[in-house]
Amino acid sequence: MLLKENIPVSYVFGKIKKEVLMVAVYAITIYCVHQYYNFKDVSIPLTVPTILGTIISLLLAFRSNQAYDRWWEARILWGGIVNDCRTFARQVLTFVDSSHDGEQKWALKERIIRRQMAWCYSLSCHLRGQNAKDNLDAYLIDDDVKNIKKLDHIPLAINELQGHDLRTLYKLGWINEYQQVALDNTLTNFMNSMGGCERIKNTVFPVTYSVYIHWLVMFFVLLLPFSLMEFFGIFQVPLVIAISSAFFLIEKMAIHLQDPFENKPTDTPTTTISRTIEKNLKQMMKDELPGDIDAMIGKQHQKKTQFYIL
Amino acid sequence: MLLKENIPVSYVFGKIKKEVLMVAVYAITIYCVHQYYNFKDVSIPLTVPTILGTIISLLLAFRSNQAYDRWWEARILWGGIVNDCRTFARQVLTFVDSSHDGEQKWALKERIIRRQMAWCYSLSCHLRGQNAKDNLDAYLIDDDVKNIKKLDHIPLAINELQGHDLRTLYKLGWINEYQQVALDNTLTNFMNSMGGCERIKNTVFPVTYSVYIHWLVMFFVLLLPFSLMEFFGIFQVPLVIAISSAFFLIEKMAIHLQDPFENKPTDTPTTTISRTIEKNLKQMMKDELPGDIDAMIGKQHQKKTQFYIL
Amino acid sequence: MLLKENIPVSYVFGKIKKEVLMVAVYAITIYCVHQYYNFKDVSIPLTVPTILGTIISLLLAFRSNQAYDRWWEARILWGGIVNDCRTFARQVLTFVDSSHDGEQKWALKERIIRRQMAWCYSLSCHLRGQNAKDNLDAYLIDDDVKNIKKLDHIPLAINELQGHDLRTLYKLGWINEYQQVALDNTLTNFMNSMGGCERIKNTVFPVTYSVYIHWLVMFFVLLLPFSLMEFFGIFQVPLVIAISSAFFLIEKMAIHLQDPFENKPTDTPTTTISRTIEKNLKQMMKDELPGDIDAMIGKQHQKKTQFYIL
Amino acid sequence: MLLKENIPVSYVFGKIKKEVLMVAVYAITIYCVHQYYNFKDVSIPLTVPTILGTIISLLLAFRSNQAYDRWWEARILWGGIVNDCRTFARQVLTFVDSSHDGEQKWALKERIIRRQMAWCYSLSCHLRGQNAKDNLDAYLIDDDVKNIKKLDHIPLAINELQGHDLRTLYKLGWINEYQQVALDNTLTNFMNSMGGCERIKNTVFPVTYSVYIHWLVMFFVLLLPFSLMEFFGIFQVPLVIAISSAFFLIEKMAIHLQDPFENKPTDTPTTTISRTIEKNLKQMMKDELPGDIDAMIGKQHQKKTQFYIL
Amino acid sequence: MLLKENIPVSYVFGKIKKEVLMVAVYAITIYCVHQYYNFKDVSIPLTVPTILGTIISLLLAFRSNQAYDRWWEARILWGGIVNDCRTFARQVLTFVDSSHDGEQKWALKERIIRRQMAWCYSLSCHLRGQNAKDNLDAYLIDDDVKNIKKLDHIPLAINELQGHDLRTLYKLGWINEYQQVALDNTLTNFMNSMGGCERIKNTVFPVTYSVYIHWLVMFFVLLLPFSLMEFFGIFQVPLVIAISSAFFLIEKMAIHLQDPFENKPTDTPTTTISRTIEKNLKQMMKDELPGDIDAMIGKQHQKKTQFYIL
Repeated sequence: MLLKENIPVSYVFGKIKKEVLMVAVYAITIYCVHQYYNFKDVSIPLTVPTILGTIISLLLAFRSNQAYDRWWEARILWGGIVNDCRTFARQVLTFVDSSHDGEQKWALKERIIRRQMAWCYSLSCHLRGQNAKDNLDAYLIDDDVKNIKKLDHIPLAINELQGHDLRTLYKLGWINEYQQVALDNTLTNFMNSMGGCERIKNTVFPVTYSVYIHWLVMFFVLLLPFSLMEFFGIFQVPLVIAISSAFFLIEKMAIHLQDPFENKPTDTPTTTISRTIEKNLKQMMKDELPGDIDAMIGKQHQKKTQFYIL
Repeated sequence: MLLKENIPVSYVFGKIKKEVLMVAVYAITIYCVHQYYNFKDVSIPLTVPTILGTIISLLLAFRSNQAYDRWWEARILWGGIVNDCRTFARQVLTFVDSSHDGEQKWALKERIIRRQMAWCYSLSCHLRGQNAKDNLDAYLIDDDVKNIKKLDHIPLAINELQGHDLRTLYKLGWINEYQQVALDNTLTNFMNSMGGCERIKNTVFPVTYSVYIHWLVMFFVLLLPFSLMEFFGIFQVPLVIAISSAFFLIEKMAIHLQDPFENKPTDTPTTTISRTIEKNLKQMMKDELPGDIDAMIGKQHQKKTQFYIL
Repeated sequence: MLLKENIPVSYVFGKIKKEVLMVAVYAITIYCVHQYYNFKDVSIPLTVPTILGTIISLLLAFRSNQAYDRWWEARILWGGIVNDCRTFARQVLTFVDSSHDGEQKWALKERIIRRQMAWCYSLSCHLRGQNAKDNLDAYLIDDDVKNIKKLDHIPLAINELQGHDLRTLYKLGWINEYQQVALDNTLTNFMNSMGGCERIKNTVFPVTYSVYIHWLVMFFVLLLPFSLMEFFGIFQVPLVIAISSAFFLIEKMAIHLQDPFENKPTDTPTTTISRTIEKNLKQMMKDELPGDIDAMIGKQHQKKTQFYIL
Repeated sequence: MLLKENIPVSYVFGKIKKEVLMVAVYAITIYCVHQYYNFKDVSIPLTVPTILGTIISLLLAFRSNQAYDRWWEARILWGGIVNDCRTFARQVLTFVDSSHDGEQKWALKERIIRRQMAWCYSLSCHLRGQNAKDNLDAYLIDDDVKNIKKLDHIPLAINELQGHDLRTLYKLGWINEYQQVALDNTLTNFMNSMGGCERIKNTVFPVTYSVYIHWLVMFFVLLLPFSLMEFFGIFQVPLVIAISSAFFLIEKMAIHLQDPFENKPTDTPTTTISRTIEKNLKQMMKDELPGDIDAMIGKQHQKKTQFYIL
Repeated sequence: MLLKENIPVSYVFGKIKKEVLMVAVYAITIYCVHQYYNFKDVSIPLTVPTILGTIISLLLAFRSNQAYDRWWEARILWGGIVNDCRTFARQVLTFVDSSHDGEQKWALKERIIRRQMAWCYSLSCHLRGQNAKDNLDAYLIDDDVKNIKKLDHIPLAINELQGHDLRTLYKLGWINEYQQVALDNTLTNFMNSMGGCERIKNTVFPVTYSVYIHWLVMFFVLLLPFSLMEFFGIFQVPLVIAISSAFFLIEKMAIHLQDPFENKPTDTPTTTISRTIEKNLKQMMKDELPGDIDAMIGKQHQKKTQFYIL
């Protein structure tokens, strides 16, 4: 989750502690050697780090761009999930007319919409490598839970269950053939969003680029003290630390952004988004059903299994 | 709202007043210390700020790009809302044939189209954190207003009401099954645009980048006087102010553009756009209904509640 | 309209005449002051303009990119209008089977296709701020012209008329329900293209960026003579003019490209494109109707009003 | 057509022969004048070309990007044509069930698919400004050829003929109403691809950018010898040639890529792609029709005209 | 396949071994000549490599971007194949209701889904230039295998077979007309993904850019020792090697990424993805068919040929 407040300075610097320490030690060593053994002739003209600095800047800009794009795409995918969940709920609620046979129809409608909430939570866990089977009991009926527990890919299984219930709706004549296809399209959108998240999760940023940029930064840092020594003496040390920290920080930011499903503070806030979806979908059900919805939802919930057997 | 006229120079500089003042004080201090205590040996070669300047320029270009993209995407989303509102109105007006039973059909058509105007205004308020429930009475019938007042997410609720009225149209046989699905697609587009705006509103630009770029600019400004002192003496002060203002301004512009729903002069002009939509939709209704439309719309408006009860 | 031939050098330089003149006067003044009052010590090291030059280059590259994107998007939108007009004509011509009741059907088909040509011309005028109501008599029947004249947004009104005629086609049983929805989709595409053009027309490029880049260029130009004086003497003047013209020209190009609907030589060629559409659509009608089409189109044209009353 | 083998070094250098020669003459002249008239004081510090070099590099990068995007978009459009042709063939072959009345149905199916091959070849010629009417006899029946010969825009006319045959299929009851709309969508895709290619063909890259970048490169080349003379003497000549060739080459590459339908070695390989489509579509027909397809296709071919009259 | 672990340093350096060796020999030669023949006057000022370095960096950044885009697009296309396979399986499983006539229906459903697995494997081989006909026996029934063996383009042929089976489903009344069109759309998505991969496979990156960037890097490397000699003496050799390796490595990475279907470690992991699809689809079938699925699938498998004859 990436919010304005929750990334303190210490968190940022915690990530590059090790590198900064090493650079400090290195810069001081160079200074001492330089002072006591006095070999002026390896002073490097500042133009060499300038050339390297330009190359590294361009590569880091390229890298930041790609990392940001991955992170933003992940956010767009989950934004799309929000939209599609609302659309799916609206379609389920308005396509099926529950003005007569109200209770049965309502039970099925509620089951489908609650199952969609379960899908969001399970996808969130699935992407983060957590157990996607936990905490689904609150949203799924018992039969579903039992069915799913045996399988590996929970969100995929839930999506298929939705498909089965659409068929049930169609067979009962509660939606017509166009409406079934329209609802099926929305299920396809869920598949596409899920697949997109898995793609980002499973595809590493080309590793040779990462490795190579890291080496180049290291090489730049190794040369820097020799260039600055001549002009700054002991003040070279803080300058080297500051400049190299700059490069290290951009590198680290890119590394963090590029993998947005790893349970880190820079992650896509999948749990928060799932909770928003749950809240929105509950409002839509409340809106649909005037009266004491919370009580009624509770009541229906107990009846659900019955309906399923029926 | 971002227009050619309404961002005066003073507004722009008002945003960086504090920073510029601090830089001025700092540069003068350095000058005085330098003059009276005379320590020439910390003069920094200009190449060091050049390296830093290149890095900062690239990072600011990256940042400006992403901020501009967010701002432009917000504009595209609202442009899409304009298009979809016109499309929705055209579909409602031409799919339902009001040549017989004209008055009843017309009342329902008008109710739906006016509700779409309400959706635009409420979304605008919702995004800017204003009360989305105000001023909707002019566009919604009383029942709708009462229903909605209890809920949190007003635009979502209005969208669902549209879905219900589409079902009503279908049940009354005024639109066929394909037309219901086509109109439902347009509602889905509204959901997607709304979701996109909320995504931009709720997702902060990666905070570490912002913080980090700011630090780097500060570091650059701290070094600058030492480099320029040697060549310019007291003229160093205006130069330092001018160059650092340059960086501060680009940074500020990016910060402003990246959040386009914050009630600032650089916002996406959601209210103006909503007003344009209202004007366009009223023209389309007038076009549909030859005769004294304004009077008739008024008359229908009073009858609406009746129809709804009916 | 942007063609290979029609932007002469004089046009390009005409745009920056004023700025170049001012720069020349300024550079000569500096030279004179420098020569006769002889104050060498304000010579600025070339590294300072280099830093500024890098920042300005990156900002101008950013700016050029965004301006080019707006211009290219405008072109893509009008390219899409060409495609959709051809598609619309193909659908109207092939969905309605005019092998019996040929003349009546043909009259309606022709009316719809000619009205689409009118839409293109009126959109072109609407975007350029010209009177969109002129010259439509050649493409619209009298009733349409009368209806439209009272309204503000002509292309929107024409689009709605197309929707009405689709309903007429459907009511007459000349197209089926799927074909109505397919044709309505094409009308939606027209709405989206029109909305996109209006978005580009009405959204200014963030004004603070423009202002700010201009200031930075001015600041750069002010410093330049002091840097070059030392090395070039009087030759400094042409060099300053050449380098600053470079920056001014890129800036001007960006400003021109970013507003592609302003009746300038760099505009999107909306009139030429509309003419191409008219030619294509006429070919398609000729293709459909073997025989002396030009005569027949003329004949039908006179009968149209009759049909409309019918 | 752009393949790995067919752009020899000589081709590349052939394009900049003239410019390189001029630069060589100029550099030698400067050297001679410099040597014999000995005016040292116009030596230009290397920083001036560095500033110019940075601006030019950024502009060329911008230009290369846009040119590459045009070229790649052209390739994507033709890639889309391949996909849509295969899809169109699959739909025609599987939507129409030719298990009874096989021969008549097969004749019509084959006619439609072969006409699609003709569309590809004619579009290829149309874009390159060649005669699009040649060589179509092998793919079209005589009536089609006769009809088309009178018209200007051949691919547009062929597309309309496809629309007519879809109507025929629908009227004969060989496809249902959804299938007609689905096939019509594929025809719309062809229109969009064609329109996209025409857009790229007809829209020049903003001419002022091109002209201006060229001038800036020339200006850079004019200054270069004065900067390098001091350090290199006569060796300045090859250096100037090498560096300016670098800029000229990038410029030329961009110019070539940006117009991908001009019968040059860097073109989009439209003829090769059309041939691939023909091969794929023939395989699909062979696959559909077990038995001696080549013989049968030949036989049907002769019968086609008959069927058409029928 | 591109994973975190499998690109060792040695692999990376193996790719530029030859170039590095040549550069080392060259740098040492220059050093020796310089030492023993002592011609100081060809020392090149560092600014010249700086200009070249900037141009090369920008070109390499441009190149890396395009190469990365190709690689990422290839990954997105295969991600889309995963999504569409799951969607296709869900549609086949839920559109056809196998509650009565279960076994026959199930056999056909399984045949279609298994054939889709075969499509993935054959596309993977087809793109990598391997024999796409091997190993398909495990997924296809004997008739399909026999049919396909005669053809060139295996994935295209399998796609057409899927179309035939959709027609069979429709003719048997097991899916309705909308469902056929919906399933056909998914087949179209497969065609588009396949076409996109083929486009990337068959289109080379503009060869002149590649050649030209390579020359420019070589030219830069040739100049470098002359610039560094003055300051570093013999230490010039490792510096030249390090800096030129930097450029060579970025160039090589771009070359590798830009062709993602060549059986290299940086490839898109098409085989792994195909295996994931197989696993997912098998889970979905298991989910659909409660009971001892593995046994049943085996049993059905033997019956399949029978059904086909039926």
